[in-house]
Amino acid sequence: MITTTLHPGRDGAGVVKRTVLPGGLRVVTETMPTVRSVAVGMWVGIGSRDEAPEHMGATHFLEHLLFKGTPTRDAMEISASVEGIGGEINAFTAKEYTCYYARVLDEDLPIAVDVLADVVTSSLVTEDDVESERGVILEEIAMHDDDPSDVVHEQFAAALYGDSPIGRPILGTVESINALGRDRIAEYYHRYYRPLRTVVSVAGNVRHEEVVELVMRAYERSGALTGPVDYAPPRTSGPGAPARSGVRVLDRPTEQANLVLGTTGMSRTDDRRFALGVLNAALGGGMSSRLFQEIREKRGLAYSAYSYTSAYADTGQFGIYVGCLPSKIDDVLKICRDEVARVVADGLTEDEIVRGKGQMRGGLVLGLEDTGSRMSRIGKNELVYEELLSVDEVLARIEAVTADEIAGVAADVFNRPLTLAVIGPYGDKDFSGAIA
Amino acid sequence: MITTTLHPGRDGAGVVKRTVLPGGLRVVTETMPTVRSVAVGMWVGIGSRDEAPEHMGATHFLEHLLFKGTPTRDAMEISASVEGIGGEINAFTAKEYTCYYARVLDEDLPIAVDVLADVVTSSLVTEDDVESERGVILEEIAMHDDDPSDVVHEQFAAALYGDSPIGRPILGTVESINALGRDRIAEYYHRYYRPLRTVVSVAGNVRHEEVVELVMRAYERSGALTGPVDYAPPRTSGPGAPARSGVRVLDRPTEQANLVLGTTGMSRTDDRRFALGVLNAALGGGMSSRLFQEIREKRGLAYSAYSYTSAYADTGQFGIYVGCLPSKIDDVLKICRDEVARVVADGLTEDEIVRGKGQMRGGLVLGLEDTGSRMSRIGKNELVYEELLSVDEVLARIEAVTADEIAGVAADVFNRPLTLAVIGPYGDKDFSGAIA
Repeated sequence: MITTTLHPGRDGAGVVKRTVLPGGLRVVTETMPTVRSVAVGMWVGIGSRDEAPEHMGATHFLEHLLFKGTPTRDAMEISASVEGIGGEINAFTAKEYTCYYARVLDEDLPIAVDVLADVVTSSLVTEDDVESERGVILEEIAMHDDDPSDVVHEQFAAALYGDSPIGRPILGTVESINALGRDRIAEYYHRYYRPLRTVVSVAGNVRHEEVVELVMRAYERSGALTGPVDYAPPRTSGPGAPARSGVRVLDRPTEQANLVLGTTGMSRTDDRRFALGVLNAALGGGMSSRLFQEIREKRGLAYSAYSYTSAYADTGQFGIYVGCLPSKIDDVLKICRDEVARVVADGLTEDEIVRGKGQMRGGLVLGLEDTGSRMSRIGKNELVYEELLSVDEVLARIEAVTADEIAGVAADVFNRPLTLAVIGPYGDKDFSGAIA
Repeated sequence: MITTTLHPGRDGAGVVKRTVLPGGLRVVTETMPTVRSVAVGMWVGIGSRDEAPEHMGATHFLEHLLFKGTPTRDAMEISASVEGIGGEINAFTAKEYTCYYARVLDEDLPIAVDVLADVVTSSLVTEDDVESERGVILEEIAMHDDDPSDVVHEQFAAALYGDSPIGRPILGTVESINALGRDRIAEYYHRYYRPLRTVVSVAGNVRHEEVVELVMRAYERSGALTGPVDYAPPRTSGPGAPARSGVRVLDRPTEQANLVLGTTGMSRTDDRRFALGVLNAALGGGMSSRLFQEIREKRGLAYSAYSYTSAYADTGQFGIYVGCLPSKIDDVLKICRDEVARVVADGLTEDEIVRGKGQMRGGLVLGLEDTGSRMSRIGKNELVYEELLSVDEVLARIEAVTADEIAGVAADVFNRPLTLAVIGPYGDKDFSGAIA
């Protein structure tokens, strides 16, 4: 067991400590002495990106199954134990990791740790549960499919990465879910859900040593804490995902067209990610951004119009999303193309850079006031990065971005071939001109 | 100017004070000494419920227009002033009130107060802005219309309250929005947006006296702070909204059917609302609730299944929402009906009551850790209630609920005639048996 202070904090607040336990289980905590709640996350470094094509959706299917029962708790007891004390418990599956989390009053921390450790280490994954949960997941897929703004993002990933693991839907498809058997999912669980790939993160009014104690007690019951004090390094690559350029149109009788226009962005370790962040803020990060001003404020062409970035171990996305009446899509696409070209040609103004930095800075600080967001920051960070940047260090990196760096990033990213995904009542309308 | 301490707080935290200014403008603040952000809300006691049928959507249209410009700021300056310091600024329109709000770092409180007061008191509402924003609102209506889970709640309100103001959509319709002229909206603005109907609420690391000073300075510029120190009392009734029973089916080619089954609930001043809250928690308030357990955990018939309550001045709603594959709707409706009947016949178990209370208690405490939720609580409360219950008083009311009261509420509410709204690929399928 090795304990390190990752950040000394200030006046007892913001102290981040990490302990590595036998088997490689990591426990990271951050002290927030003035709050009454505590957030607990158990992060497993396995996501939909690790699935073979024929097991598409297995990671997410498993996430559901973990709430169905352990040797000591059935599904009702799992949820009731946390909800009965006013807490919440849930989970989500991403492309590169899966997270189980709870938020409770600080005096209830032992319950949250115990229940989450129980589901993560000791779920039964029975045949009956697989069958009943299959129905729930098919419902989730159908629900998703009824939301065009969800579907268009999935279509964009598919267009950008093709039929590679990172381009496939996290939920899987009706066919892949119907084909998944209990044994395959259970095997997946026992192979991947190991302490060496797990991070427990806790933020709130807690003592690190007490959290470590609680985690050890909960994990020891399952016999998981054996082996060297050694954990899996962050993922640095993934199964090949050659980015493509192309157009993907889904003909749907929706009231609005939904579109994502974009290209590859940057991996999460790319040093230029802070410059891309400022660029993204200025281009489509808020109501004062160029895209919002042009598309919505000046022209009234859309209600929702924004740009975003997402980052993985070895790649990333930059995308512009707009929802607009079908008849307006050509105007909207033209504005998007023009604004991107204008940034490449002229960079950002000094005002925009100042505002973009202010937006990132304030968003970071304002976004870290609650226990849930602090827990997520340290937990995800521990899983995917070699080191933890303090909030002050991140702020300094944002501040240090120069106009030249932004111009360089714009020239690099926006000169990559574009990809477009569209959903709307378009029949076989040809959008290939929009990315040419 | 009259200042009252509404709650003394503890160790300087949770002190709630109110000042009434000339013209009836109220300023309420709550101290949260350990946070870095501050949330500011300006609440106007006017909602879609106050619209004549031919002006449907005017309240929400106006909310959009207020961000378009004042004599000293254009749309870009309004958003940039807050976003450039990393804050957020936005607004929402409800049936009985409209709220403009911002969240910023505490040192930026003066900016947030100044910008919000400017838009609330001094917007220009120009002809050009009305035309350009009309397009944005038509986009918002279309976006809404593409989300069946939104549409079904609107259909339920329409079925329950008929063509009365409270049953109509907040956004209006394509027809009503196209028919609204600039003069009508401007007249609506000048008539209703008065200090006597406005509450400014602020939560964060603030001093009450400083907030009052800032609000006065910002409001005086518009000349609004004149007249008696007297404000409009809370709304206690509304234009007639006789609740009905009926079925409303919208035939749509969705993957999932969406349904809301329910009836009238309780007004926000009804003393039995705490008992209804416990009942709602046990019936459909979480993963351990009866409906979730029966519909999802045991039968795998849905992904999303929950019940909810909403409350207005003189009426309320109780509803059960489920999204399920179209072929499963009869099973789902039968479970909903059976569970409601079982509660009416046998009440809740002791376990369920304890859990329901724990859930409400924890939800309340955990839900009040950030400045935005505290700001909302005191602001909305000041507008719609005669008095402010402290969090401890609310907790005591929840604790005091008895099994008999819950049984009484179940017998009352669940014996009211039922209303059902359904969206799905059902052609002219007859659902009238489901509420008979």
